[in-house]
Amino acid sequence: MTQHLLAHPHTLIPLTYFSEEYGSAKSSISEDLSIIKEAFESQGIGDLRTVAGAAGGVKYIPRTTHEHAAAFMETLIMELAKPERLLPGGYLYMSDILGDPKTLNHIGKLLASAFRQSDVDVVMTVEAKGIPLAYATASFLNVPVVVVRRNNMVTEGSVVSINYVSGSSKRIQTMSLARRALPEESRVLIVDDFMKAGGTIQGMMDLLQEFKATVVGCGVFVETADDADRLIEDYISLAKLQEVDVKEKQIMIELGSYFSNKEE
Amino acid sequence: MTQHLLAHPHTLIPLTYFSEEYGSAKSSISEDLSIIKEAFESQGIGDLRTVAGAAGGVKYIPRTTHEHAAAFMETLIMELAKPERLLPGGYLYMSDILGDPKTLNHIGKLLASAFRQSDVDVVMTVEAKGIPLAYATASFLNVPVVVVRRNNMVTEGSVVSINYVSGSSKRIQTMSLARRALPEESRVLIVDDFMKAGGTIQGMMDLLQEFKATVVGCGVFVETADDADRLIEDYISLAKLQEVDVKEKQIMIELGSYFSNKEE
Repeated sequence: MTQHLLAHPHTLIPLTYFSEEYGSAKSSISEDLSIIKEAFESQGIGDLRTVAGAAGGVKYIPRTTHEHAAAFMETLIMELAKPERLLPGGYLYMSDILGDPKTLNHIGKLLASAFRQSDVDVVMTVEAKGIPLAYATASFLNVPVVVVRRNNMVTEGSVVSINYVSGSSKRIQTMSLARRALPEESRVLIVDDFMKAGGTIQGMMDLLQEFKATVVGCGVFVETADDADRLIEDYISLAKLQEVDVKEKQIMIELGSYFSNKEE
Repeated sequence: MTQHLLAHPHTLIPLTYFSEEYGSAKSSISEDLSIIKEAFESQGIGDLRTVAGAAGGVKYIPRTTHEHAAAFMETLIMELAKPERLLPGGYLYMSDILGDPKTLNHIGKLLASAFRQSDVDVVMTVEAKGIPLAYATASFLNVPVVVVRRNNMVTEGSVVSINYVSGSSKRIQTMSLARRALPEESRVLIVDDFMKAGGTIQGMMDLLQEFKATVVGCGVFVETADDADRLIEDYISLAKLQEVDVKEKQIMIELGSYFSNKEE
């Protein structure tokens, strides 16, 4: 039962499913569920929500406690702050971290946890580095992923394109999304690995207007702190690059805005 | 225990881990493991391998039976053969299928299953559409993913680039990989979503020579059958696009080379 719940997040599972699958009475299924519920909560795995009535059942909502999230991110920040990660232009080398499926899943769970009540229909990102993180997040929200292309790929059918100004490089760029990739009036969560001025995310928001979509939130892994020119305001970051001293090879990085919200 | 095994594929877990975690004697742990082993095998989840001795333990190897794999792919092929998927140039629209985390995980498990004995160190793909599939495959093999870039991204440090000729478009293109992204002499599994003539995969193979890597295999989701110009020979495909009749809007697609090998 635990395994089935973990494999089907954000999915309402009728109690009859379990009672038929395991040949047990609904009452003993309910008892087992309350044990699982406690274990999930105490171990910081997530919530188990029960919905009463004929159309009722149980739903597993992945959720990470602030305590677990902070412990995980603090370890990751120590790894990110290693001087050899410093790249020209004030960027950080993160491909190894975002290339490890286990770490990636953990980060995805944090983002899915932050937006668990946002009624997300689809996770959107722009190619290429944000793609794995978008999938990791989407799998915990049980929704599909839509990838915005940086050019017009012939293999996508009719597309909607917009030009946008990248906030950090101030250059005009193009991004496109296939018309059929996103149903109109979807509720979209934007996910990306790195945000400088936010031009790319602003571009995605503009593109989404063409699809009459609602942006329910933005989640980024690392943001930079030069927010004087910040184009967007409403987002969650897991880590914040405070200062990069290219000369001294020092990286100052701290917990992101995810952790300023004490509500959980 | 089941959950821990499923979450840690291709990882040797000492029996002492379970006996400490659950406060049980090793003998009863062994008994439980043989029950799980039988369940995994009968349900087509995978193998459970026990390694004897002081450094021993148990390892879960994800494996899909031919029967399960064929049933899954036949359903998917019916979906892929829908005429509205047809795009100019004989391409198929697959973004919705590859955008669904559950389907993607299933496909990834098939590929991981095919290369379970190849001692893979790392899964490699080229941006952008193959990335999600590469991650899905890698998570079942418990290895990291390395993504080859189609241009020189400033954020990667020093890179190795090669020019290659795309087999289908006959144009010269560039692909690059950061020097630090891949340790030398790695054993690499190449994964991609679509293969026409194979120029992109051949390009990755050439690039890998620069890293003194060994290519242990190639797995693609869909290949096209115009193999007169096929540049590479040794690969596994899950589905094969036999014929696309753009005029009649007909798509002929069948099971790929994955299923010609009856060995399992």
